[in-house]
Amino acid sequence: MDLQRIAHVVRGLSADGVEKAKSGHPGLPLGCAEIGSVLFFDVLNHNPANPNWANRDRFILSGGHGSMLLYSLLHLTGYDVSLDDLKSFRQLGSKTPGHPEYGDTPGVETTTGPLGQGIGNAVGMAIGERMAAARFNRPGYEIVDHYTYVLAGDGDLMEGISSEASSFAGHLKLGKLIMIYDSNRITIEGSTDITFTESVKDRYLAYGWHVQEVDGHNITELQQAIAEAQKVTDQPSLIVARTQIAQGAPTKVGTAGAHGSPLGEEEIAGLKRAIGLPEDKHFYVPDDVQSLAQVVTEKGQKKEKEWEERFAEWKKAHPDLAEQWDAWTNGELPEDIDEVLTLFSEGTTIATRAASGQVLNALAEKVENLVGGSADLAPSTITYLEGKGDIRPTDFSGRNFNFGVREHGMGSVLNGLSLYGMFRVFGATFLVFSDYMRPAIRLSALMKQPVVYVFTHDSIFVGEDGPTHQPIEQTESLRLIPNLHVYRPADAEETAWSWVEALRRTDGPSALILTRQGLPVSEKPAGWDFTKGGYIVKEETKPLSIVLVAAGSEVSLALDAAELVEKEGLGVRVVSIPCREVFLEQDEDYRSSVIPIDVPTLAIELGVGSGWYSINPKGNVSVCSLNRFGASGPGKQVAEYLGFSAEKIAKRALEIAQTK
Amino acid sequence: MDLQRIAHVVRGLSADGVEKAKSGHPGLPLGCAEIGSVLFFDVLNHNPANPNWANRDRFILSGGHGSMLLYSLLHLTGYDVSLDDLKSFRQLGSKTPGHPEYGDTPGVETTTGPLGQGIGNAVGMAIGERMAAARFNRPGYEIVDHYTYVLAGDGDLMEGISSEASSFAGHLKLGKLIMIYDSNRITIEGSTDITFTESVKDRYLAYGWHVQEVDGHNITELQQAIAEAQKVTDQPSLIVARTQIAQGAPTKVGTAGAHGSPLGEEEIAGLKRAIGLPEDKHFYVPDDVQSLAQVVTEKGQKKEKEWEERFAEWKKAHPDLAEQWDAWTNGELPEDIDEVLTLFSEGTTIATRAASGQVLNALAEKVENLVGGSADLAPSTITYLEGKGDIRPTDFSGRNFNFGVREHGMGSVLNGLSLYGMFRVFGATFLVFSDYMRPAIRLSALMKQPVVYVFTHDSIFVGEDGPTHQPIEQTESLRLIPNLHVYRPADAEETAWSWVEALRRTDGPSALILTRQGLPVSEKPAGWDFTKGGYIVKEETKPLSIVLVAAGSEVSLALDAAELVEKEGLGVRVVSIPCREVFLEQDEDYRSSVIPIDVPTLAIELGVGSGWYSINPKGNVSVCSLNRFGASGPGKQVAEYLGFSAEKIAKRALEIAQTK
Repeated sequence: MDLQRIAHVVRGLSADGVEKAKSGHPGLPLGCAEIGSVLFFDVLNHNPANPNWANRDRFILSGGHGSMLLYSLLHLTGYDVSLDDLKSFRQLGSKTPGHPEYGDTPGVETTTGPLGQGIGNAVGMAIGERMAAARFNRPGYEIVDHYTYVLAGDGDLMEGISSEASSFAGHLKLGKLIMIYDSNRITIEGSTDITFTESVKDRYLAYGWHVQEVDGHNITELQQAIAEAQKVTDQPSLIVARTQIAQGAPTKVGTAGAHGSPLGEEEIAGLKRAIGLPEDKHFYVPDDVQSLAQVVTEKGQKKEKEWEERFAEWKKAHPDLAEQWDAWTNGELPEDIDEVLTLFSEGTTIATRAASGQVLNALAEKVENLVGGSADLAPSTITYLEGKGDIRPTDFSGRNFNFGVREHGMGSVLNGLSLYGMFRVFGATFLVFSDYMRPAIRLSALMKQPVVYVFTHDSIFVGEDGPTHQPIEQTESLRLIPNLHVYRPADAEETAWSWVEALRRTDGPSALILTRQGLPVSEKPAGWDFTKGGYIVKEETKPLSIVLVAAGSEVSLALDAAELVEKEGLGVRVVSIPCREVFLEQDEDYRSSVIPIDVPTLAIELGVGSGWYSINPKGNVSVCSLNRFGASGPGKQVAEYLGFSAEKIAKRALEIAQTK
Repeated sequence: MDLQRIAHVVRGLSADGVEKAKSGHPGLPLGCAEIGSVLFFDVLNHNPANPNWANRDRFILSGGHGSMLLYSLLHLTGYDVSLDDLKSFRQLGSKTPGHPEYGDTPGVETTTGPLGQGIGNAVGMAIGERMAAARFNRPGYEIVDHYTYVLAGDGDLMEGISSEASSFAGHLKLGKLIMIYDSNRITIEGSTDITFTESVKDRYLAYGWHVQEVDGHNITELQQAIAEAQKVTDQPSLIVARTQIAQGAPTKVGTAGAHGSPLGEEEIAGLKRAIGLPEDKHFYVPDDVQSLAQVVTEKGQKKEKEWEERFAEWKKAHPDLAEQWDAWTNGELPEDIDEVLTLFSEGTTIATRAASGQVLNALAEKVENLVGGSADLAPSTITYLEGKGDIRPTDFSGRNFNFGVREHGMGSVLNGLSLYGMFRVFGATFLVFSDYMRPAIRLSALMKQPVVYVFTHDSIFVGEDGPTHQPIEQTESLRLIPNLHVYRPADAEETAWSWVEALRRTDGPSALILTRQGLPVSEKPAGWDFTKGGYIVKEETKPLSIVLVAAGSEVSLALDAAELVEKEGLGVRVVSIPCREVFLEQDEDYRSSVIPIDVPTLAIELGVGSGWYSINPKGNVSVCSLNRFGASGPGKQVAEYLGFSAEKIAKRALEIAQTK
């Protein structure tokens, strides 16, 4: 195969794709055409006919703006991406969106675009490989044995998340992770000389990586470096590939102008002349190159078939393992996980973080592919899986991660590990620090990955640590992320339900918002239904005058306040809304059976409450919430100082009920 | 001065403070007692009697959880922090909150606690020093000439933000920035061996820093290393100080258990025995050490006085500069900045990002201490100050930063630079990537710093770049941050107003949310008042049936929809709410004069709309918004696909108005 010729065809396709769309990024595809061709036609162990083959090598384009590179390569190697798809680049509903979107395109392993995330995803996938290998490989049967490749650029490497994920990868000695750094020294504002002059090479050596440097347009050098990197089994590898952005473009090569705008017809004509493509043809693939799709696909099918044979033998030799493999890859959950729902008795008082710890450990016994960890807060978030071992550089059989104080890296690693397709994953930190990892949470939601985020210390009841550690806006701001289910359980029982619902979810992430302080397990009325996101936790005993709506620790506060209000002779109902998103998805009948449209409603939240008016848009909703930062002091004193006591809420409720 | 003895007194105070509060972090103060004593008693050029002396050295405790170290040192050196204050550690309303809070305590330069932020703040302050020096120093008058010191720990260095800020500092060759790394190799989950095994030393060498390594408990070594670091003028310096967490504690030294819990009485007794303090005394300061406060303060006063004399001479020699100095340090703004308000004519169509670029450049002419930059998106965010020069390692006279693709680092640097007290600062990126820097924005708000954040590409109208680049939840989630003013101007004229209001603000940050696409400048009714956060942009011409409420690009959409509805014979009012927070602060009379309580209201937002119900809690509010991620395609097509056209909004409005 003439890889150089293929690279030039990739250049032509990419330039034409961006030009036709009148939008996109030609610089990266042209600059990385050799890298891409070497990977897809020579290096990758993949089967374009089955992008889901479990033992395929993973490839991630971290600089997702260079998507035309990936789409061109997918087309040329025989994935289900046609020339017409390339011609629909960046059009509504096409298989070739502006940035690679997981689920939209066969062969796209993850959604990239927000810079640095792809590196973290790759680390997660490389960890997935090691963890799957530790669980399923047996002497003579290396059924899990593949590499993870990631192509990253200057922008990826400037983002802090790349540092977090790469430091973690170096620590874990992920020998089968290979990153190629497209070092074109150009970003949107110009040369990297104006802001990015660190030595990336030395930085990665400091992380414990194996580092090489090559000419990124030299196919032999690339092949040799990748072969060398593959041999290094106890360190991740970085290959610094010196490239020119928009290589081949006659006047725009090496310029920031080629990064994110179409090259223009004249420039493309010059490009095609320079690389030996016919000037007058668009989306040109010579027949000999087009025929390579079949060659690559047949090679891939053969490889997968050989693997399938080994896999069948392994299955026969290890039927128990095979059963587990099937269950894990199919995302099956044990039926009996709902046993955790009865762990707690009414009347006991326990912090929901502590309840979560018990539930999580009970679940871990049943759900053997449940793995996770925290950003250096396991003792506080209570997320350690007792007796389940730690994940260490030399031993990936454990189930507990020590992510370090690297929330953002944790999120992106969890996404990669979830995408790997075998594990159920969770990650924990304090709620206030969910802000540090928000872009990764958004990507879990966008990619529909059922990652579970555990966020503890959920309000000003954090107390003495003060405003920097007291969440105010975090719960509501998580609720805004589309497709993220935010559970704020009111007690231990709801906490168990939250975990079960989060694990049963297959099409998106969940966040569990948990308390530091103890909460009583309340008596629930017969027929209460957690799965509807909200329910009546206490019926009124007199004609209904006011509905108190709350979540989390404010539910017990509302119950106390309700008692005081009822003493004044008014009928009060208390509603717990552990998951507002799910509650609002219920039909109007159910919603109005819980929160009647024409009764005054008082929503209570120890944080920003602006979202609670939506609970009954036609009704008369008042909100008791916080629109300021907290204060340092013992939690109860802070709450009292900020007006959160049963007495004050009861007073407010009475006012509202009486002036309706 | 016996610095070792002082260090031991610091240990006693810190251990007692945490013990009395029954909460806090003794490990860091004990582990860094020598470092702290060397800095505060020997190294720092400061005047405890005037914590605001402009030319003081800055000191930042990035690991804010070790606040008792800082409070003890402030007390012992004579700042206005009494022994009683130390005894009130972590109590409500005290001067000694759980983490250092800017504004609460004399001598606290910034709020720290969220890890890594302090490093970025220090970089910002060190930049402030260089920028002030470039502007005000004249031959013979080095009136700006001080160091910035930051003490950081393992947690700080694991956070990606530290990488971003440190890489940037290395690039800028900030020779007067000195970071001491408390390398105790312990974090909450245990030894750093379990997750943090990179070579910090090599990493910082890769960033271009000068690096030394010392025994962090050896006073002489610390003094020598700091002296050495001071001599290096063309590189920031890192001093890796090998320490033992909780040094001196007999059994808890070197353990994770000493990080974040009181030591216990017995352990403290053992500590005091070991370091020669009386066991039976709490908060013990021997007289000879107590008397040092006066010594340090007198030394500081003398230094400041000498500086004041030089400063007076400089003032005399350079009266124009002196006037500028006073204006900048007093936060004065030129009166005539409101001239930008008339830059645009009704009827012209211009993207608000482009309008912002014009306004910003016009303002930069008038406000000469206005400086800023973008996270590698200046051409897209249109935030380059033309003709105002670039900030470069050898030349800090410019006003444009190239922050690189480092949003989070940018935010923390802006905070540090704003805290420096001389500059008005702004930073820009795409709105969707505000998520990457959210923790820094929160700290701007918490510290009441008037940082201006410019976030462009504010909706699905971003178009082809697709869901990763199309903000959905970001605008609303920024609105949730207490004390952040979020401006979403509807046209160029409102954009100019937003900039003026943001600059006039002195007690908190503002975010300007701007469009990529063109918007018409609408005709405003007489007497419209932008400063109230919301106003009637179009009065109804028939008896009022429905109020359309919108912000940003949806205002022109609402105006178009209103026209269609009025054609059907109904009275429609259109309200623009450029800043909801400010609007909601108005009295009820004003609010209900704009949005009558009893008229159906339809709020329109091209993003998550759950916050809009709050606009009229007692009214009948419907919301036309997006609760899903976007899609890749031309912006108008995406908007149409998601139901955002004047026709569809008019239809919805008619339904609502007619079924009221």
